[in-house]
Amino acid sequence: MTTAHVFIAASLDGFIARADGDIEWLLQRDDPAEDHGYAAFIADKDMIVMGRGCYEKVLTFGAWPYEQPVLVLSRQLAGTAVPDALEGKLRFSGLAPKAVMEELARQGVRRVYLDGGQLLQSFLREGLVADMVITTVPVLIGAGRPLFGPLAGDIDLRLVSSLGFASGLVQSTYRVVV
Amino acid sequence: MTTAHVFIAASLDGFIARADGDIEWLLQRDDPAEDHGYAAFIADKDMIVMGRGCYEKVLTFGAWPYEQPVLVLSRQLAGTAVPDALEGKLRFSGLAPKAVMEELARQGVRRVYLDGGQLLQSFLREGLVADMVITTVPVLIGAGRPLFGPLAGDIDLRLVSSLGFASGLVQSTYRVVV
Repeated sequence: MTTAHVFIAASLDGFIARADGDIEWLLQRDDPAEDHGYAAFIADKDMIVMGRGCYEKVLTFGAWPYEQPVLVLSRQLAGTAVPDALEGKLRFSGLAPKAVMEELARQGVRRVYLDGGQLLQSFLREGLVADMVITTVPVLIGAGRPLFGPLAGDIDLRLVSSLGFASGLVQSTYRVVV
Repeated sequence: MTTAHVFIAASLDGFIARADGDIEWLLQRDDPAEDHGYAAFIADKDMIVMGRGCYEKVLTFGAWPYEQPVLVLSRQLAGTAVPDALEGKLRFSGLAPKAVMEELARQGVRRVYLDGGQLLQSFLREGLVADMVITTVPVLIGAGRPLFGPLAGDIDLRLVSSLGFASGLVQSTYRVVV
């Protein structure tokens, strides 16, 4: 079985980016001297799964930041060619969340890093998220792209750990109770 | 000068109540054996300021839970009589946040407990909140009455402390940076 794991930061009022995708407010408040655990988190993931919005944001970074293979879920990109420079590192898929996870399980992929708010929301609604590391940034930005969204019913969580950093970030790890 | 202080709980997705005001999901996850610090918080407050929604919710509790005088900000209730049983414990005011805080300062009120989401949002927009104790409940409820709302600009926060409880609550105290 493939399990999906989330590692994401949001403002205290629950936004992962401004409406235009800007995350400068987040980067400003990052302290590179603090270990927020991303390296340890990503080390045991076999694949990174993201939506188109997230993929297009990563393309603007210049250098491709991932060692693991990346799967971009997008009906729009599915069937199109990946950029030459990313051949072998990247794949597009038009499958729905459940079908993707079943396909990955057949391929022997065990643990995926699920990135981006829209994808998190659709995987949560399908009961496909195992756990989430949520880093809360000490700022209110008032509007933007929300981390969470509407649900068919409550989703119960179990707090695994929580840690406040000197920078003001608070990082909490939750297991999704099924 | 009067300062306003917030002590409030919200689901991980940022709701303080369901759309109909229900907070059963929150009460269910409270562990009375844990000290979440409300007694210590309220001990040095001179007054409680709340909106009409919050006041009407408290009325349904039966017993009046507050020792301190309560001020309900409501244009609708301002000028109406307070219930006989609450005479001397409760006052209605139709003033806007800034004018209220100025009036309270003239009356020698130093520290007020600001309760309720709508009131928190309007006081935040006016720069009238000193600090907030936010308790995050380990559940996603998907919709309801939001803790935070739109802002004219970013509000920078300083993390004072953060603590995870065995029950799964995470309580973080933020000072509003002005």
